Amino acid sequence: MYSFRNDYSDGGHPAILKALTETANQQTDGYCEDRFCLEAANLIRGYINAQDAAVHFIAGGTLTNLTAISAFLRPHEAVISAESGHIYVHETGSVEATGHKVFPIQSANGKLRPEQIETVVAEHHFEHMVKPRLVYISQPTEMGTLYSKGELSALRTCCDNNNLLLFADGARLGSALTSNSGDTEFSDYAVLCDAFYIGGTKNGAIFGEALVICNNELKADFRYHMKQKGALAAKGRILGIQFKRLFEDELYLNLAAHANMLADRLQRGILDSGFEMLFKSSTNQIFPIFPESVIVELEKYFQFYRWEKLDDEKSVIRLVCSWNTDKKDVDRFLDTLGKL
Amino acid sequence: MYSFRNDYSDGGHPAILKALTETANQQTDGYCEDRFCLEAANLIRGYINAQDAAVHFIAGGTLTNLTAISAFLRPHEAVISAESGHIYVHETGSVEATGHKVFPIQSANGKLRPEQIETVVAEHHFEHMVKPRLVYISQPTEMGTLYSKGELSALRTCCDNNNLLLFADGARLGSALTSNSGDTEFSDYAVLCDAFYIGGTKNGAIFGEALVICNNELKADFRYHMKQKGALAAKGRILGIQFKRLFEDELYLNLAAHANMLADRLQRGILDSGFEMLFKSSTNQIFPIFPESVIVELEKYFQFYRWEKLDDEKSVIRLVCSWNTDKKDVDRFLDTLGKL
Amino acid sequence: MYSFRNDYSDGGHPAILKALTETANQQTDGYCEDRFCLEAANLIRGYINAQDAAVHFIAGGTLTNLTAISAFLRPHEAVISAESGHIYVHETGSVEATGHKVFPIQSANGKLRPEQIETVVAEHHFEHMVKPRLVYISQPTEMGTLYSKGELSALRTCCDNNNLLLFADGARLGSALTSNSGDTEFSDYAVLCDAFYIGGTKNGAIFGEALVICNNELKADFRYHMKQKGALAAKGRILGIQFKRLFEDELYLNLAAHANMLADRLQRGILDSGFEMLFKSSTNQIFPIFPESVIVELEKYFQFYRWEKLDDEKSVIRLVCSWNTDKKDVDRFLDTLGKL
Amino acid sequence: MYSFRNDYSDGGHPAILKALTETANQQTDGYCEDRFCLEAANLIRGYINAQDAAVHFIAGGTLTNLTAISAFLRPHEAVISAESGHIYVHETGSVEATGHKVFPIQSANGKLRPEQIETVVAEHHFEHMVKPRLVYISQPTEMGTLYSKGELSALRTCCDNNNLLLFADGARLGSALTSNSGDTEFSDYAVLCDAFYIGGTKNGAIFGEALVICNNELKADFRYHMKQKGALAAKGRILGIQFKRLFEDELYLNLAAHANMLADRLQRGILDSGFEMLFKSSTNQIFPIFPESVIVELEKYFQFYRWEKLDDEKSVIRLVCSWNTDKKDVDRFLDTLGKL
Repeated sequence: MYSFRNDYSDGGHPAILKALTETANQQTDGYCEDRFCLEAANLIRGYINAQDAAVHFIAGGTLTNLTAISAFLRPHEAVISAESGHIYVHETGSVEATGHKVFPIQSANGKLRPEQIETVVAEHHFEHMVKPRLVYISQPTEMGTLYSKGELSALRTCCDNNNLLLFADGARLGSALTSNSGDTEFSDYAVLCDAFYIGGTKNGAIFGEALVICNNELKADFRYHMKQKGALAAKGRILGIQFKRLFEDELYLNLAAHANMLADRLQRGILDSGFEMLFKSSTNQIFPIFPESVIVELEKYFQFYRWEKLDDEKSVIRLVCSWNTDKKDVDRFLDTLGKL
Repeated sequence: MYSFRNDYSDGGHPAILKALTETANQQTDGYCEDRFCLEAANLIRGYINAQDAAVHFIAGGTLTNLTAISAFLRPHEAVISAESGHIYVHETGSVEATGHKVFPIQSANGKLRPEQIETVVAEHHFEHMVKPRLVYISQPTEMGTLYSKGELSALRTCCDNNNLLLFADGARLGSALTSNSGDTEFSDYAVLCDAFYIGGTKNGAIFGEALVICNNELKADFRYHMKQKGALAAKGRILGIQFKRLFEDELYLNLAAHANMLADRLQRGILDSGFEMLFKSSTNQIFPIFPESVIVELEKYFQFYRWEKLDDEKSVIRLVCSWNTDKKDVDRFLDTLGKL
Repeated sequence: MYSFRNDYSDGGHPAILKALTETANQQTDGYCEDRFCLEAANLIRGYINAQDAAVHFIAGGTLTNLTAISAFLRPHEAVISAESGHIYVHETGSVEATGHKVFPIQSANGKLRPEQIETVVAEHHFEHMVKPRLVYISQPTEMGTLYSKGELSALRTCCDNNNLLLFADGARLGSALTSNSGDTEFSDYAVLCDAFYIGGTKNGAIFGEALVICNNELKADFRYHMKQKGALAAKGRILGIQFKRLFEDELYLNLAAHANMLADRLQRGILDSGFEMLFKSSTNQIFPIFPESVIVELEKYFQFYRWEKLDDEKSVIRLVCSWNTDKKDVDRFLDTLGKL
Repeated sequence: MYSFRNDYSDGGHPAILKALTETANQQTDGYCEDRFCLEAANLIRGYINAQDAAVHFIAGGTLTNLTAISAFLRPHEAVISAESGHIYVHETGSVEATGHKVFPIQSANGKLRPEQIETVVAEHHFEHMVKPRLVYISQPTEMGTLYSKGELSALRTCCDNNNLLLFADGARLGSALTSNSGDTEFSDYAVLCDAFYIGGTKNGAIFGEALVICNNELKADFRYHMKQKGALAAKGRILGIQFKRLFEDELYLNLAAHANMLADRLQRGILDSGFEMLFKSSTNQIFPIFPESVIVELEKYFQFYRWEKLDDEKSVIRLVCSWNTDKKDVDRFLDTLGKL
């Protein structure tokens, strides 16, 4: 039964596994000081056009988020996040476990606006309250929506004006970069963010994220923080080899574009069948609204998550396409839907 | 230049990479709830003869140590470790970063004795001091020495008598299990420890450790702790597939036995050449003593760590053999040494 | 200029200072193991009718909250609080600094309802989210509102049904107990809460809170947690002497009743002058609504906090009466208001 | 039965209690922003001859240590302390509970030497180990010994050379300043330390310590850290009034000198009776060596702590004189000893 549940259901792109296999007998240094990590970091610096960015490879998204955020903050400093932000909802209080409050902002579409941030900053005005210091955004958001370049620039200005750091969770950054409706490119993130990460786990790697630190003041001693949090892999090369492969040609962007394209095909097909979307997505996650009877029927043939119950009759489901989804899987879903 | 620096210089055993490659297109659930993780856990439970043990797969040793130890302790409880214990020396204060003191015990050979533990417990007698609660040992130790079954049993009794948990860091557990001079087997650890981990990173895996929790009282909600610490891999299958492969036949033990065997060959050869050892090792790490002039010469042909300066003339070096070391590499080292 | 800003503007009730002075030359043990602390704890156990309650004396409210809450929770467990809860807003992330998320619930009147708690519990259903474990309430709330006995009982039932602990911040508990509209008495808290504290700082003491732990499972090793957090005073007697004095007759309740009575007189006077209240208070904090011009005028003669701007014309101010407020201060305020 | 157990057995000096009583009806701002705290801070700045030092008042020593140290360090940074240092032994892991390793150095007399610190710094050379950043000393030490001005200067130079902060725990600083054999004065600490605290609890106050931060880089946002750790007292004035009184004349130094003088009288008397000292003390703690039979007899008339068992026959006891010890108490002890 084909699963549209998420984009980490598969094992890894063949080119990644080939690279891992072919290099297996080469001895290297450990802890991300090997030639593969160095080369991968250089390739990424080229893509993002930031020759002095620090690039670190870490085994997963939550580990990346908690290591970076706790390294960047002093004890009394706090994070501002959308209420739907992954660190606020779905990382088991990992940031709070390092001692920092995460202050949630309500947002229907998962995005933060400068005026919301400024309100929070204004409210936190004295030492009886935490001091907001880092704005956490996800690009694309957990709802599949996208910040435009203009919106990111406005957040940057807001952060500059309020002594805030801007951190972007790019677990699905590839999807943002290759979306039809997105207007950002790699180099924008190096300019606009203090730090961000480029997700590998959800875009062809067997696992791994590339954290990019652009703000010079955040770079010192970062490997200490990684080691302390268990985020400095002994065989760091396994991460380096993967990111080298993803970035030595257009593989990273191509895989993301493929996933977006099939999600778009799926979305258009569902709309053509007369159903509605919670909102129109331009990334690899889509959110159709179906009657319960249709959902029950679809569950006989496909796996996916129920997202939200709208009323007694209708619910939203989430369908995710990945680099490894086939056009045939999408068309089979649309056929099944058509026959209901 | 061949490196005897450590046992994580290579990329991964061919059988591991083959298994990863062959399964890459199979969709599974995430977060270690896939069939590979389930099967690997079952295989391990069979090996250790503990059908109700909890088995969790985590991406590295430091991450395993800090997640387990912080999950097992209340805030005022502390860890007892040898001064040479990996968590005390070489994990950047990762356990303290979760809030717990690690109390060091001096030990020339890296091993703890019950009477040392009891002295520490006796000294910590009231609420102005931390409460010792967990004994951390490494098997084999960071010095390559081994606890015998009798010694482990004595530690278990000591822990039982003092309300202490016994946790074994098994980053190189395979080496302990297959050592000529060791007398423990897998099932002993399930009986004698409250929890321990079976290291994969240093024994053929591309990365990954299998944490085994034997004490029922430590099992509840452990996946919450994993997620909070960034230790619950989205593509947990990558860990499960590897451990399934390592334990579906004798691969795990065979790889460790190979490394031990070559280290023994190397040690005997060096002794035969008239040099001494810091102490005789029966694991895959050996500690020969050489004059400076010999070391300088050897460094032209091989990589290894200088371990300790003994006097103006002599130093100890560390040589590590791995599952991927070849007899030819060992013999070439001995040849080179013979010609000096 | 008289200040209605808060109830900790004065130094301490004369009887308290007399008791401290008279006992100054008596030698005692340290760390709350002296006879004064023991006697004060016994007096409190009598008042709350709970002979096996653990009673601990701590130098302030934030220190009490963070010590108790962090002692009661395992790392992945979280707190549920009203968005206006003191720990959520005004303690600089002290609970998060011990590693625990505080989940906020919106509440116009500062009170939590069982169905709100149950919604939060239902949403936090798996290991990717924190596990709600402790409900934090303030009695009276930060808005001066009160939980009735029935409401507290309903929260208790809700907590029992959902494996939650109920913790009451009683910084102004005296005000709740002696309010005209309150129907709870001391013994109710011992029955309905797992732990709560009786505030001294805001009710006649020079400083100090009495934490009462009713749930047996939370009592073990609590003094370790106190010491670790800096909450075990070397001269614990200073706390014990004060609470002994407050509870050896009705002083504690009488002081709170006095503050409530004057706040009520102030509230009635303001209402009689034709102004409105944000809501009618029955504790020692009242929240009148005045035009800006009136506020500016009042500020010439009295100190108080502006609470909230309602519109361009009107704002809410907060007026607090204390055990040391005099009827003349209140009448002078009303006179001044009458003349405007 | 008179107690020589410690210097916090009494309630507080009469002048302190008088000052608290006389000011009780004056209304002030809260949280150490009142006129008493401001005046006390100014008086202290005068004494230490450092007009731009930040002075904060905190309710106890452990709370002061943990608040200051955790505020000064980044997560991967560690503390160096003598093995007998109060934070290492007797504060229930309070510093580790804020996430920082405390690295112990063996020291027979409780003092640290620069070469010991430099060895620790040299050993901690890379990111797999914590980064030593703060040297914690106690003046006088927990053994009653003293750093000379020359020794402190040498530590300062060592810290400067190794990018280390120097923090002095002055729980008994008055005893150091007024010791016959000491050669430091108040202003030396402002010059030589990055931060230190002036203990009140053990020198006449009912409780309270004055933390002095000399290093400009450590001053920012310190009140946030205080509030977060529960160290910002609502009635901060209670601390301010006491320190104002202690420093508005020579009271602080006089009380300490008194305690030292009586301890010296006691020490000389015991030596004259033919007994030995563990080492000669010049502070208010002395460490005589007595046969078991003598100790048992003395325990019938006086309270004191047994410090250390030397052999089957002899033990060390600790006798502490305080500002409130009377010459008659000392002479009675000597009489009793003389009669044995």
